[in-house]
Formats: sequence, structure tokens, C-alpha cells
Amino acid sequence: MRSVTAFAPATVANVSCGFDILGFAIDAMGDTVEVVRSDSEKLRVVSIEGDGGKLPLEADKNTCAVAIQAMLEALQQKVGLDIYLKKGLPLGSGMGSSAASAVAALEATNRLLGNPFEKKDLLPFAIAAEKVACGAGHADNVAPSLLGGFVLIRDYHPLDVIKLPVPEGLYCTLLHPHYELKTADSRSVLRDQIPMKHATIQSGNVAGLIAGLYESDFELISRSLRDVIAEPYRAVLLPGFYEVREALKAAGALGMGISGSGPTLFALSQGKETAQAVAKAAEKIFKTIGLDLDVYFSEINTKGAYVIEEK
Amino acid sequence: MRSVTAFAPATVANVSCGFDILGFAIDAMGDTVEVVRSDSEKLRVVSIEGDGGKLPLEADKNTCAVAIQAMLEALQQKVGLDIYLKKGLPLGSGMGSSAASAVAALEATNRLLGNPFEKKDLLPFAIAAEKVACGAGHADNVAPSLLGGFVLIRDYHPLDVIKLPVPEGLYCTLLHPHYELKTADSRSVLRDQIPMKHATIQSGNVAGLIAGLYESDFELISRSLRDVIAEPYRAVLLPGFYEVREALKAAGALGMGISGSGPTLFALSQGKETAQAVAKAAEKIFKTIGLDLDVYFSEINTKGAYVIEEK
Repeated sequence: MRSVTAFAPATVANVSCGFDILGFAIDAMGDTVEVVRSDSEKLRVVSIEGDGGKLPLEADKNTCAVAIQAMLEALQQKVGLDIYLKKGLPLGSGMGSSAASAVAALEATNRLLGNPFEKKDLLPFAIAAEKVACGAGHADNVAPSLLGGFVLIRDYHPLDVIKLPVPEGLYCTLLHPHYELKTADSRSVLRDQIPMKHATIQSGNVAGLIAGLYESDFELISRSLRDVIAEPYRAVLLPGFYEVREALKAAGALGMGISGSGPTLFALSQGKETAQAVAKAAEKIFKTIGLDLDVYFSEINTKGAYVIEEK
Repeated sequence: MRSVTAFAPATVANVSCGFDILGFAIDAMGDTVEVVRSDSEKLRVVSIEGDGGKLPLEADKNTCAVAIQAMLEALQQKVGLDIYLKKGLPLGSGMGSSAASAVAALEATNRLLGNPFEKKDLLPFAIAAEKVACGAGHADNVAPSLLGGFVLIRDYHPLDVIKLPVPEGLYCTLLHPHYELKTADSRSVLRDQIPMKHATIQSGNVAGLIAGLYESDFELISRSLRDVIAEPYRAVLLPGFYEVREALKAAGALGMGISGSGPTLFALSQGKETAQAVAKAAEKIFKTIGLDLDVYFSEINTKGAYVIEEK
């Protein structure tokens, strides 16, 4: 085998009440990475498509190369590899763009090297890449992009990642408004200290969401999709946030929240028809607000990253 | 039918990471209430056994009578009832003593009146009694005492109570040291503001605990039984807290925490043998510390309150 191409899906981190501990993957979009053996002993990022020239080609800055490098170090191997990245995800949108690139690179390289790692064991390498891309080694995008479905990051030291069930018929609508929101700005509005009362409300809701996923109880999922510790502060950075939510819930959405640190919003719905109605309602309300928008909807991706071609 | 006697079990509220939102019931102990029709149109608390004369007989202060009164008001009925309470639970111990009395009184009265309410719908009346007994209308003792098993209180406005699964073979050991700890003191050491970081750690653990209960994953339950927002402050009020936990975990306990607001401690274990070993380890370590102790162990009670006699 000389070349492997893999796909890794977009992801929604935080999921309202699951701030910093939950994420899920969606089928609609993702990044594609081809990894090809080369005669050199180096990692090279040969080309990046779809990033508008914004991403670095240097191996110590590019998220794909950093992830692969971490993997090769763990294997104590020196292998020459050429990396070809096709971005399917917009940068800095809150859909796990850097995570999808790193995960697709790892999935392809793992197969190319004869699967030295279990899928789950690729996670630390993807987290290392997130550290370079985002300044913090979060797992709430890379874990669902790699493993699929809803994923709980219970702890980082040691890493404790739990795959949760996905109710049949759960759909996600993603709303990507055409403006930039820097992760740093979205982080800076958060509070260092929060009321104890808010912590227990958040705990109750995340417990309700987990129970709702296990029970396929869409009403319980809907009641639980509330974030009191991050969203109230971030919503002020997102024009029309509460009007959009009202319109989407009126169209049948179970709930709506900020995808990652925004500006993309996500809504969950029961059934395809409702997800379509929610998408239409989103287009209408954003038109009223006067913001351009891309809307995607899809089922939850339950398989995570996968190989699409081997040569 | 002239008389009904009902039993309601002891409960462990908080359950470490489930601070203020979780509770479970245990089979080992509980309160028993007999409710007898009388010719008067009044509620009377005729006798209380096992309280050392500490509990009030006045109908507007006694937790059984307050609960029944709330129920009768909802029914818009005037019924003369005599109440006989047998305390099986020590007062102010953190085992849901007032909750068990109120719940047993409601279970008995509901049957006596021909079951006008579904079991779950008795909850608001028990919460009203907790308000009188404890100064706060918490549901994390009354809900599991009434319904059995592990119960999540997701929200109070409106009340949202979710019964969670109980893994086969999950045992609880209760350690009741012979000293008093006032709930007010145990509350007063808590912080009004907590670090955001602690809130997300707590969320991760409670999410892990819920997933562990659904998956019957005892290892995950064990890893998740950590409380970072209340226990560190309360532990200082509990002599030998960390030594006791170390000894119990060495004996095989999945985890140990404070039952309600203490001073009783609870430990969870997989299997009866381990629960027995944990009980023995508890007796040994408390002897070393020099504190008298009652130890109980039992399976989780999954049926909640129940009628034991009708006449």
C-alpha cells in the first residue's frame, strides 16, 4: 500500500449543557486527507485545498503533520510521508475544522502503517495537534470526529472518553453565519468564577441530557439542552441569538446552542422533516436579521473517521 | 379500610458528584407510619417512637402531618386522620430522616383514600414537608425515598424527576458516626462562587456516573464518584474523612462520599462480599480514629416506599 485517503467529520463541541465535556459528529461535512509514502524521511504537507491559502504548510505548524509526527514519535518510527489536505470545513467556524484535519490525517496514516493503533488510541495525537492549532489540548472536537456519535470527555488526566448512544432519528441542523468570531474572544467573555447555583443547574441538565440519550427520550433531551455557564456570556457576541433560537424552537427544534465557541449554531431535532423545517426557519430569520448564512442538516455521524481509498 | 401502615426507606442525597441533583434509596433502614381514620376532622400526630422525644407532635410542625395536609388541600378534602410514626432512622444523620417520615405518611394516606394520586404525584407534598423540616424544599431525599433507586432531580421549576437504572449487584455501605453535624453548619461552609473549572469537572463526573449506571460499568462509576464543589469544604467538618476513604477504597469500595450533608458517609461497592469487607474496614478505621459508629449495608432499594399493612 502506497497511499491512503481518509475522511473525518465536522463536530459540535459543548452541546449547550455539556460545556467543555461533550461533543458529537455530523455526517454533512468534513475534511479529507491523503497520506502518501515518500522516499524522503520527512513529513511534508504538499498541498491544501479549500482554505483560501490561510493554513500553514510547515510541518511543525500544520495540524495534520503535528498529529502524524506525534504518532510516529510514539511508534519510534521515521517514515517519509506526503500529506494532501482537502478542507471541507470552513476555518474558525466552530465546527471542529482543525480537529477534522488532524483526525483524518491520523486515520489515513494508521491504515497506511498497518493499523499499529486501535482507533481510540489515536486520540492523544489528535489532542497534541489541537494544542498547536488552538493553543489548548481540548478533546471535545477530536474525540467525536474520530469515534463518531456523542462522546463524553469525563477527564483528561488520565484521558477518559466515553461513547454515548445516539437515539434513532436524531438530526442536527448547523447554521454557519458569514462572519468571523475568534475563539480567543469567545473564551475571553467567560467568567473564571461562577455561582454555585449555576454549577448545580448545569450538572442537572447534563445529567438529564445523558439520560435522555440513553432513553431515546427526545422531550428530556429538549428540556436538558440549556447552558447557564457559557452561553449567556457568549450570546452577546452572536447577533440575534435569542430571536434565532425562538424561531427554531417554534419550527420544532429540540433546542439550539452554540457549536464549539461559535459563530456556528447547532439545533437538534427529532426526524428529518423537522430538521428541514428548522433549516428553513433559520434561513428566514437570518434574512430578517440581515446576515448571510450556510445551512447544513444531517443525521448524527455514528462511525467517526473512516478510510475512503487505499492505493 | 380504616388504617394503612407504610414504610419509606433511608436515602443518600448528593452522591458525590451529584451534589444537589441526585439521590438513591437503600433497603437497610427506614421509617414506618400508620395512618388511621378518626371521627374528628383533624390531623393528629398521636405518637412518635424512636426519636428520643425530639420531634414535634404539632400538626403544623410535624413532617408527616405537613405532608398529609398538603395532600388533602390538593384534594380539597377534610378528613380526620391519626398518625403513628415509628422512626427507624436517626435524626439529623444525613440519611433522609425527615424525608422518610413524610414519604411513608403520604404513601399510607394515599392508599387509605383509595389512591387518588399516582406515586410520582405525591412528590410536591413531600417537598412541602421538607421545607418545614429543613428550611429548604429539596427533593433529593424525598424523591428516591418515594420512587426507589437512583433518582435525578433535573429541575424544580417545574419539577423534573428522572428515575435512573440501578446496576445489578450494586451495594451501599452506610457509616453513621455518633456525633451531630447540623445541616446549617454543613451548608455554611459551602462557597457561593466556585471556579468555572470545578463546574466542568463536576459536570464531567456526573455525566460519567449517569453513563456508568446505564452501562452497569462499575469502573466508570468508581472513576466518576468525585465531588469537587462541596466535599472539599465539608470534609474538614468530618474527622478522619480522607483516612476513612483510603481504607474503604483499599477494601474494594468503588467510592465513598458524604451522605446528604453528613455526618453519615456512604460507600458504593460491587457485590455483597465487597460491601461486607468495606463495612469491616470502616469499623476498624473508626476504632483507630476513636469514633463510635453504626454500620449498615444493603442493596439499593429499587421500589421506594410501600404499604406494609392495611386494616
